[in-house]
Amino acid sequence: MPKYKPVDPQESPRFSGIKTFMRLPHVQDLDGVDFAIIGVPCDAGASFRTGQRSGPEAIRNVSALLRHHNPILDVSIFEYCSGIDYGDLPVVPGYIEDCYDKIAESLFPIIDAGVFPILLGGDHSITLPELRALAKKHGPIALVQFDAHTDTAEGYFGRPHNHGTPFRRAAEENLLLVDHSIQVGMRGSIFSKDALNNARDLGFEVVTAGEIREIGASKLTQRIHKRVGDTKVFVTFDVDFVDPAYAPGTGTPEVGGFTSGEAINLVRGLDGLNLVGCDVVEVLPDYDPGQITSLLASNVAYEFISLLALQKKCIIEKA
Amino acid sequence: MPKYKPVDPQESPRFSGIKTFMRLPHVQDLDGVDFAIIGVPCDAGASFRTGQRSGPEAIRNVSALLRHHNPILDVSIFEYCSGIDYGDLPVVPGYIEDCYDKIAESLFPIIDAGVFPILLGGDHSITLPELRALAKKHGPIALVQFDAHTDTAEGYFGRPHNHGTPFRRAAEENLLLVDHSIQVGMRGSIFSKDALNNARDLGFEVVTAGEIREIGASKLTQRIHKRVGDTKVFVTFDVDFVDPAYAPGTGTPEVGGFTSGEAINLVRGLDGLNLVGCDVVEVLPDYDPGQITSLLASNVAYEFISLLALQKKCIIEKA
Amino acid sequence: MPKYKPVDPQESPRFSGIKTFMRLPHVQDLDGVDFAIIGVPCDAGASFRTGQRSGPEAIRNVSALLRHHNPILDVSIFEYCSGIDYGDLPVVPGYIEDCYDKIAESLFPIIDAGVFPILLGGDHSITLPELRALAKKHGPIALVQFDAHTDTAEGYFGRPHNHGTPFRRAAEENLLLVDHSIQVGMRGSIFSKDALNNARDLGFEVVTAGEIREIGASKLTQRIHKRVGDTKVFVTFDVDFVDPAYAPGTGTPEVGGFTSGEAINLVRGLDGLNLVGCDVVEVLPDYDPGQITSLLASNVAYEFISLLALQKKCIIEKA
Amino acid sequence: MPKYKPVDPQESPRFSGIKTFMRLPHVQDLDGVDFAIIGVPCDAGASFRTGQRSGPEAIRNVSALLRHHNPILDVSIFEYCSGIDYGDLPVVPGYIEDCYDKIAESLFPIIDAGVFPILLGGDHSITLPELRALAKKHGPIALVQFDAHTDTAEGYFGRPHNHGTPFRRAAEENLLLVDHSIQVGMRGSIFSKDALNNARDLGFEVVTAGEIREIGASKLTQRIHKRVGDTKVFVTFDVDFVDPAYAPGTGTPEVGGFTSGEAINLVRGLDGLNLVGCDVVEVLPDYDPGQITSLLASNVAYEFISLLALQKKCIIEKA
Amino acid sequence: MPKYKPVDPQESPRFSGIKTFMRLPHVQDLDGVDFAIIGVPCDAGASFRTGQRSGPEAIRNVSALLRHHNPILDVSIFEYCSGIDYGDLPVVPGYIEDCYDKIAESLFPIIDAGVFPILLGGDHSITLPELRALAKKHGPIALVQFDAHTDTAEGYFGRPHNHGTPFRRAAEENLLLVDHSIQVGMRGSIFSKDALNNARDLGFEVVTAGEIREIGASKLTQRIHKRVGDTKVFVTFDVDFVDPAYAPGTGTPEVGGFTSGEAINLVRGLDGLNLVGCDVVEVLPDYDPGQITSLLASNVAYEFISLLALQKKCIIEKA
Amino acid sequence: MPKYKPVDPQESPRFSGIKTFMRLPHVQDLDGVDFAIIGVPCDAGASFRTGQRSGPEAIRNVSALLRHHNPILDVSIFEYCSGIDYGDLPVVPGYIEDCYDKIAESLFPIIDAGVFPILLGGDHSITLPELRALAKKHGPIALVQFDAHTDTAEGYFGRPHNHGTPFRRAAEENLLLVDHSIQVGMRGSIFSKDALNNARDLGFEVVTAGEIREIGASKLTQRIHKRVGDTKVFVTFDVDFVDPAYAPGTGTPEVGGFTSGEAINLVRGLDGLNLVGCDVVEVLPDYDPGQITSLLASNVAYEFISLLALQKKCIIEKA
Repeated sequence: MPKYKPVDPQESPRFSGIKTFMRLPHVQDLDGVDFAIIGVPCDAGASFRTGQRSGPEAIRNVSALLRHHNPILDVSIFEYCSGIDYGDLPVVPGYIEDCYDKIAESLFPIIDAGVFPILLGGDHSITLPELRALAKKHGPIALVQFDAHTDTAEGYFGRPHNHGTPFRRAAEENLLLVDHSIQVGMRGSIFSKDALNNARDLGFEVVTAGEIREIGASKLTQRIHKRVGDTKVFVTFDVDFVDPAYAPGTGTPEVGGFTSGEAINLVRGLDGLNLVGCDVVEVLPDYDPGQITSLLASNVAYEFISLLALQKKCIIEKA
Repeated sequence: MPKYKPVDPQESPRFSGIKTFMRLPHVQDLDGVDFAIIGVPCDAGASFRTGQRSGPEAIRNVSALLRHHNPILDVSIFEYCSGIDYGDLPVVPGYIEDCYDKIAESLFPIIDAGVFPILLGGDHSITLPELRALAKKHGPIALVQFDAHTDTAEGYFGRPHNHGTPFRRAAEENLLLVDHSIQVGMRGSIFSKDALNNARDLGFEVVTAGEIREIGASKLTQRIHKRVGDTKVFVTFDVDFVDPAYAPGTGTPEVGGFTSGEAINLVRGLDGLNLVGCDVVEVLPDYDPGQITSLLASNVAYEFISLLALQKKCIIEKA
Repeated sequence: MPKYKPVDPQESPRFSGIKTFMRLPHVQDLDGVDFAIIGVPCDAGASFRTGQRSGPEAIRNVSALLRHHNPILDVSIFEYCSGIDYGDLPVVPGYIEDCYDKIAESLFPIIDAGVFPILLGGDHSITLPELRALAKKHGPIALVQFDAHTDTAEGYFGRPHNHGTPFRRAAEENLLLVDHSIQVGMRGSIFSKDALNNARDLGFEVVTAGEIREIGASKLTQRIHKRVGDTKVFVTFDVDFVDPAYAPGTGTPEVGGFTSGEAINLVRGLDGLNLVGCDVVEVLPDYDPGQITSLLASNVAYEFISLLALQKKCIIEKA
Repeated sequence: MPKYKPVDPQESPRFSGIKTFMRLPHVQDLDGVDFAIIGVPCDAGASFRTGQRSGPEAIRNVSALLRHHNPILDVSIFEYCSGIDYGDLPVVPGYIEDCYDKIAESLFPIIDAGVFPILLGGDHSITLPELRALAKKHGPIALVQFDAHTDTAEGYFGRPHNHGTPFRRAAEENLLLVDHSIQVGMRGSIFSKDALNNARDLGFEVVTAGEIREIGASKLTQRIHKRVGDTKVFVTFDVDFVDPAYAPGTGTPEVGGFTSGEAINLVRGLDGLNLVGCDVVEVLPDYDPGQITSLLASNVAYEFISLLALQKKCIIEKA
Repeated sequence: MPKYKPVDPQESPRFSGIKTFMRLPHVQDLDGVDFAIIGVPCDAGASFRTGQRSGPEAIRNVSALLRHHNPILDVSIFEYCSGIDYGDLPVVPGYIEDCYDKIAESLFPIIDAGVFPILLGGDHSITLPELRALAKKHGPIALVQFDAHTDTAEGYFGRPHNHGTPFRRAAEENLLLVDHSIQVGMRGSIFSKDALNNARDLGFEVVTAGEIREIGASKLTQRIHKRVGDTKVFVTFDVDFVDPAYAPGTGTPEVGGFTSGEAINLVRGLDGLNLVGCDVVEVLPDYDPGQITSLLASNVAYEFISLLALQKKCIIEKA
Repeated sequence: MPKYKPVDPQESPRFSGIKTFMRLPHVQDLDGVDFAIIGVPCDAGASFRTGQRSGPEAIRNVSALLRHHNPILDVSIFEYCSGIDYGDLPVVPGYIEDCYDKIAESLFPIIDAGVFPILLGGDHSITLPELRALAKKHGPIALVQFDAHTDTAEGYFGRPHNHGTPFRRAAEENLLLVDHSIQVGMRGSIFSKDALNNARDLGFEVVTAGEIREIGASKLTQRIHKRVGDTKVFVTFDVDFVDPAYAPGTGTPEVGGFTSGEAINLVRGLDGLNLVGCDVVEVLPDYDPGQITSLLASNVAYEFISLLALQKKCIIEKA
């Protein structure tokens, strides 16, 4: 029996109660915890629309719809995992570098305790301090990035940090095994002809949306597995990977994206990777009146949890 | 010439006039009527979001966009059918069992008069009293259910009725020919490993969204026809069959669903079944700011009407 | 030092963290607790618009704006009180009488432990089971009701319970000292000429909005104090007391109401009454796009807490 | 007993049924009818925001909240009046002069049958054809106009008709007894120094919002009664008379307006005038997410009906 | 170096500044200009929902997201083109024929100056005066129309002009080379069996959505190229070509449409045609709360610009 | 004749054209300019809700409703003033101190050229760099602040700058003549008992909302004039001065505020002060679905312009 699991849906309706992810207990004691949902309400890096600070709240609100058993991956999560909603990490509006420091500092003890972190953004800039905390524990790790953009710009307005730069910085800071890292889903207009090459020059493998359409989902999954191998890997999912019809509530949407079904299937295809954490970012509730973006993001987080449960299930079944 | 048909769109713009379905006359006299649009503004069964009581109003408002000729099924509806908007059936907020009694009682005379009922929900719990009224007339009938969920739970919070239980109750009450009944489109997380098996144990054929993706639309259509045969059949369409991108305005959305085009095509594929009624349920206007869910539901109802008209056309052409 | 108080706003921004009322700890241990915020996400009694089940969530979300010191009542709340967010009471959608039983049963232990309850609705029907729980502890008590309607109808659709009947039922069940009870703010069209007299016949003092405009706020405050005297009293605040401009998000709004400033001042005027509990009801977030209704409701709850703190301050200062 | 009255609210909840005004029967037979609610879904005259074509629908939807007895005017409407919802008058989008012709032509038979018309706009341009129809029956009549603007501009973009010109045109066409006509509530910035004088030069009495604030409501009521005397009079109520806080959903809002309570009281003050018709215009639902503007407009129409009922009550009581 | 290009995104964030298309300079001097973005804020032709006058504003607001390089067409726009935002053409609300005159008159000088016009609607009626201006310069031209409807109705309500008639009128006025014109994407219910034949009788090639699904995108592209040949051609893109999930903000949506990705690809497939202008119409912001329709429309315009740039690039590279 | 004035409303409807303030020309040449509207799209200082970067856009969009003549102040603006919309000042999201530097640097040349600046926020933090630029030109100046909060906190999260601290910093940096400065309208809960005293300790005169209610508008106006005398003065208007019913779209709303009419009248009461600039801040469009907050803010800016015009009129008339 897991130490922590959601409130029983037969005990009270899923719309009731304090809004934690999946109605998990909100505790910060890490003992007996397999995974922690962690909000990062930071939008200091948002270069176009802002308000991603409300992303964690919106994802939590709708996550009550998620149920214990994942029929596609065929795993009942809480038979194998104990999970909590840790709450939010501290941030400092208007001071992105302070945000980075606070995020990394407060995340590290969770990682260090061996708890699997699933982070809810927040704009994409937050992945940099997450990677700093992870690298402090694990050393450089691989990255799988689902995104419409590479987020490897040189800088903006004379400054090094916003949500368009985290993966250049991560590469420069040696937080990543770029040789094992892969960015998938890039599309849309770009600032200059060589914008995608910039990411490739840093060492990332970049698979554009057009290429994915050509090769198909299962080939893409193979490429991801081949690239990552059995290195430790962090998965970052920017909801703009998905088409604005499926994810209107985001900061820099691009038309011509993937469906929610395609996206979820690709996440499921990560089964077998050596995951050390993941995040889902760029949910912007003010542009999501029907809450479908939050719903999608909560499902992405759910699949991450399911992957972890599956991993634990395999270990148990092998034993 | 049909006794009742919509207001002429050349006489006044489609945005004008009292909001009945397709601007049909609102009458309750059943003489000379082939089909009746009937609202069921009930949300007493909603276990997560509520407000489905406004579904009929929202569907009616946008239904003025529908025109007389269905080019895919190639039928001009009002050459073959006379139709009315009957208005809404009475309900008792807060007392789901009273709602059930009132719905069944007030629906029966319409069915008994030989009028084809097309019901607009309301949450999915309303299909149970509809089936009670239909079975009183026809005896047990077959069911075709488009839905993300089987809605065959045992009960909730110690009570037998809400929108997650109608088809278990219908089976138990012998309202259905379960051997001829089929549920299609199931997807999303489930409460426990055997949730889908519960429906199968009751006798339903269950085709998940995953299976549909594999076999394709035309195979699914064949399976439905094979399952139902020429028994009398009721069709229930829960808008959460469709992806939240296409139907955000619903109570318990699930990502990874079908497109509106796929859904409409599947409804058209029911041509030839011996339909005795149908409903479209779970439209929740408060989460549908662009009105696309209502638009879709009005189109589903429109295809139902078209199927009826086609049936009458065939009879006439054969004669 | 209070055992429980809000998260420090210098430690993390007020937009961050799990959404409890005022960012109070969410605990259900009643030891060392002076007041408890308690959600009642019930809308089984809603006769027009529904969705009040989301009221507690909406009020909590915006309540982070509230700060520790009330400058008008001149009291720093957490110098005198320890408070928690208890979470929500269980409800059963579609079964109003089950809701009543669960609400009363689960509320009683809190009251019995001597904790001051501040309940967040939910539609107004919830006040009946609240009064049942309170009367079980205290015997019949007085009522001060801020509302556009008396909510003393005989019944609806052949049934005794919805949000238009709780105070008739409460009077009939002898939960109230009607001779010490007062309803203020009634306005708008009514079902029949004697609708207000019905409440008066039950023994309530009824002060219409028109009368309040004539006599003014301070006279009204005097009348309330005179009516209640020093009996134990419950205060119920329906947000439709306030004009729709100030509280659009409610189920049965009436034009021509009071401003938020007038309402808050009247609540402050209750200082000195022997309060045993209070609620704020009928917040309907789906009609509150700017969140001003939730903001107002959170301020009403804040003034209730302040009155309690003031009472404790007086006791301490006298000692 | 009146021939036509609303559906009984004990028979079905007020949210149910086809959306007519107050749930009155939708009939076009004028026999036995005292008043008719008539929609005019025209926005061809809108010079800034448009979409007033949806005004009648929005007002009808929320009007179900209105109940039979008006406690301030102390009259039970359907004891004295029989009323219908006539539906909408035909319009021709893009051709304002065609709209005018169709509105006047289709309105005249209703007026000619002695039915009291209460028209729901639509933008304010519709009052011109209404006055044409009324003048054809009654000859020139007086006008009481509640509005932030005089709507007496010379023309726009080289054309004589839009919602800024109807009362200049009405004066020029001798539809009005300008000596008995009064415009009240003008405020906000104006195109040129003499904009208000233009209305006065046409013969209207103009009372600005500033003057009303100075003299007070009862003095204003006296001025209106004095100005109109016992001539036949039409009342036109533009919702921008009211402050945007109370009526955001309108085409050309002006800050610093009246409250809904003040407005309703002024309408009640018209008791005793010899009314021959009235309208409420400029409801723009797309800017009214909480529906408070529609609610206000439905209440204005309700007070108009109440004034008519009161008139009939007086006649009966005198007899 | 182009004379006019967007503000540098490194100089100020893309959310800042006056909202012109792509943050291009707003000038009306046509010297040194290759293309002009031109708003046509006209909704006088809207037969169902209205408000398309706000389309240009909405498209401009979100167009700041567009970047200089189109990676699919592989062209950096401002290496080859100088572009401006010309602002809006004058219109006369309520007088569609005046609108037509003003649009044609004010557009002609831009065309006459050799500037490539990219027009932002407005409802679809505006394409008629655009074609008048173009034909005055070029004589009759070919048309490629992406749309769910043919817009070739005979008339409405006794009048020749609204957004359902422009292409019948254009054919009648000999503005088009109908033998080289093609309408693609038609779907949804129609007024009568021969509605599509009407367009064919006028000489248009009509390819329904169903046919496109059958033949696929590349075959459709071939058919367009074959039909148009090397005649001068105008492209008109009605956003209802796309499914309501991808473009909810439009006047007469039809379910079962194309995705944004499919649409954009089809526009790219026009490369090589002899374009003399294009428009994107029927954006209705009031039904587009997540701004995805505006985003799509801005991308359609962006592809039009890219096609022009590509054409200029080819000329340069050949030279 | 002024060099720059708005587009003529008879030439094109006010809804058309590029969205500058009042449809003024967007130029950055300062020659012949009396006043400049300047956007400051900064929300780096927002401690609760964010998105104030869209404030300038929203205010501009609705400002087209403003007309040339102010009838209360009796001045036709463009008879006395030439005005432009300068566009927005540059900002750096995520780096509040960089924002401050860029704002001050880019504002100074405008002030230095003798142009009267009217700034549109943005959150309230922007007033600090504005005051830096002004003080560089004028030396320390007086401040009149309309606001619910004093914004004189010590700091947040270990940092000196956000929208709760600008006036403490301004006092510390000697940008203000605090002895001539006054803050009016403070209300709502506060962090600690001495929060208001903190402002007073810095030397500001503080008049709470409660005090204003007691003394009335004209006494307040006298106090402001007495306090400021004839020193140079900057006026800052935070829209949360106004009640959330009138200004829902803001970052930290407080119930119980002033009406729009009261606020506008107080601004008009500043006539006679020696104004050197002003701003209106904290408009947050995402919470302003009916646009009434933007409308109010545009009217506040309009009154500022009118005060300037009045000043110039007086000079001319005296001459």
